[in-house]
Amino acid sequence: MNVAIQRTSDKATNRRGQRSFAFPQRPPLKSTFTVAGPLEGKGPLGQHFDTVLTDTYYGERCWEKAESKMLKEALKNCIERGLGHEKAVGLVFTGDLLNQCIAGSFAVKDLSVPHLGVYSACASFAEGLILACMAMEGGFCSSAAVGVSSHHDGAERQFRFPTELGVQRPPTAQWTTTLAAAALLDLGGDDDASSNSSKGPWIRITGATVGEVIEMGIKDPYNMGTAMAPAAVDTILTHFQDFNLRPDDYDLIITGDLGKVGSAIACDLMASRGYPVADRFDDCGLRLYQVGTPDIHSGASGTACSAGVFCAYIVKGMQRGKWKRVLFAPTGALYSPVSYKQGEPIPAICHAVALEVSG
Amino acid sequence: MNVAIQRTSDKATNRRGQRSFAFPQRPPLKSTFTVAGPLEGKGPLGQHFDTVLTDTYYGERCWEKAESKMLKEALKNCIERGLGHEKAVGLVFTGDLLNQCIAGSFAVKDLSVPHLGVYSACASFAEGLILACMAMEGGFCSSAAVGVSSHHDGAERQFRFPTELGVQRPPTAQWTTTLAAAALLDLGGDDDASSNSSKGPWIRITGATVGEVIEMGIKDPYNMGTAMAPAAVDTILTHFQDFNLRPDDYDLIITGDLGKVGSAIACDLMASRGYPVADRFDDCGLRLYQVGTPDIHSGASGTACSAGVFCAYIVKGMQRGKWKRVLFAPTGALYSPVSYKQGEPIPAICHAVALEVSG
Repeated sequence: MNVAIQRTSDKATNRRGQRSFAFPQRPPLKSTFTVAGPLEGKGPLGQHFDTVLTDTYYGERCWEKAESKMLKEALKNCIERGLGHEKAVGLVFTGDLLNQCIAGSFAVKDLSVPHLGVYSACASFAEGLILACMAMEGGFCSSAAVGVSSHHDGAERQFRFPTELGVQRPPTAQWTTTLAAAALLDLGGDDDASSNSSKGPWIRITGATVGEVIEMGIKDPYNMGTAMAPAAVDTILTHFQDFNLRPDDYDLIITGDLGKVGSAIACDLMASRGYPVADRFDDCGLRLYQVGTPDIHSGASGTACSAGVFCAYIVKGMQRGKWKRVLFAPTGALYSPVSYKQGEPIPAICHAVALEVSG
Repeated sequence: MNVAIQRTSDKATNRRGQRSFAFPQRPPLKSTFTVAGPLEGKGPLGQHFDTVLTDTYYGERCWEKAESKMLKEALKNCIERGLGHEKAVGLVFTGDLLNQCIAGSFAVKDLSVPHLGVYSACASFAEGLILACMAMEGGFCSSAAVGVSSHHDGAERQFRFPTELGVQRPPTAQWTTTLAAAALLDLGGDDDASSNSSKGPWIRITGATVGEVIEMGIKDPYNMGTAMAPAAVDTILTHFQDFNLRPDDYDLIITGDLGKVGSAIACDLMASRGYPVADRFDDCGLRLYQVGTPDIHSGASGTACSAGVFCAYIVKGMQRGKWKRVLFAPTGALYSPVSYKQGEPIPAICHAVALEVSG
């Protein structure tokens, strides 16, 4: 079987169950761009990032401004690489973890593009891709860009403690990544005549499953993999059931970012539900840093973790033939320091996006 | 002329310029539901809210939990009113001002609905309506709900000072409203046989214009009307130009929430650009409270201000024939206390939604 989700041109069949959708035009990925922090640049994907910063300030006087600048550069370069000029893009979706999503708002304020902010925490990139596909399939634009960002130091001081305090974190904790990543979808993207980006093979989004918010009582902000694993399992199971698929319809099923702790839980839960995935399972949180890097603990996290791994690992692996069909399932922990301090548990969400290579 | 935006069944013409879109199926509004705070209940729209709370805690021990509960009740009742059961809805979009959008995430965690978080600050309701229409037009769902919320006391302590301090605010300041509002769009909504909500006239969304982020150097968080007025003018002008319309193609052009200060600026700017709107202009921030209510100053604000006025004022006015064609243009200030304290200006956005009554 070459494709997991069958192509259809029948609009009435776009919907496959309450939460799953096929994209008949299979929007192709035209270009990506990543701006990575210094630690991320030293990791296993370092050589695959487009820009690696030498320090975490990026010439700005605070981390929040640095994050905005990283996201702006990622979006601007991604759109320019794919379409020639940023004003040529149809819609731009952004997402980030900063209070009131300021990284995205400040990133696009000089770009003159139609802007829609999304929030699914670390699953925001997947939400953006899904909404971009829906807008393109609906005939509202022929191209759309999705850009997300996170910054370790900005996130730590906002969610936990200022990094200058050097507070020790438990082994279940994950490391918020300093990274911005953008992807451009373009319905004309596989038309060689109009393309000024690299030629195929083309990576296309064939379908998606939108998440429900799942909350299982986990209250520890240093153990988000455990909080998010049930949401990942819920969405991936729903995806399989809605499209009548099995794990081996995909060459790679990659969540993000559950880390070591959450990945093990997700694989166990999937097997217990009759869908063993361990032989083709990976997690974006396990790809960004070398094993044994101090303080990374359970793995990477942050809105840009799954997006950065998408651009620098999944896309490049699909382009060189490593995987043909990938289920990309970013996860997000939908809490805030306020809800945590008020004793509330950590709800989570996972949106899944099906990717396939075509020649 | 009966309709402002002409109906078209040609998918290729969905796009009217870079930022403006026609919705050929004209998604009808099926139901709404509002949960208002005590002060809002005493205002001129008090009798039009579905629920009015007697205190700002709604039986919870903190305002953030109260806001989530308000949003949950608004969404649940709105969907039940329109579709019978909340699980029958296709997609649910939520937006709020709390850090990491926790009002929305916690509101839907017990509802078992596909969830997509949006963020355009106080313009989030319009963003949700636009994305809901795009998803419906693309064939991905036949119904979608949009719910937003804000809470005065939660917002004040997050953005400015705890309300217990009684800090005096200048006359340009606006009053964040305590309110949750939800609207359900349903493509089968005008089919009387399937309808268990009130019968027509039907209010339909015919088109929309997505905002760009505009920043004009305003840095005063007590003067957001001034910060947002240029974004409103930019989006409304773009709407007129993209659809080749004039102000008198609408019976009402209502921004939200510019307040007294921002409304005057917006009208002046529109006139100076050759599109005088003052004779049919209103602002959602001017509708929620009685003139002269202490501390309201320039008017109402908050994510739920424009949404609450939409449900309790615009929709009811259109239903009883007061206006046939309305341009609803909520505005949002895309800043955070962090960006403000770092000396950054306040970027703003406005998304416009065109509404028409049909028999």
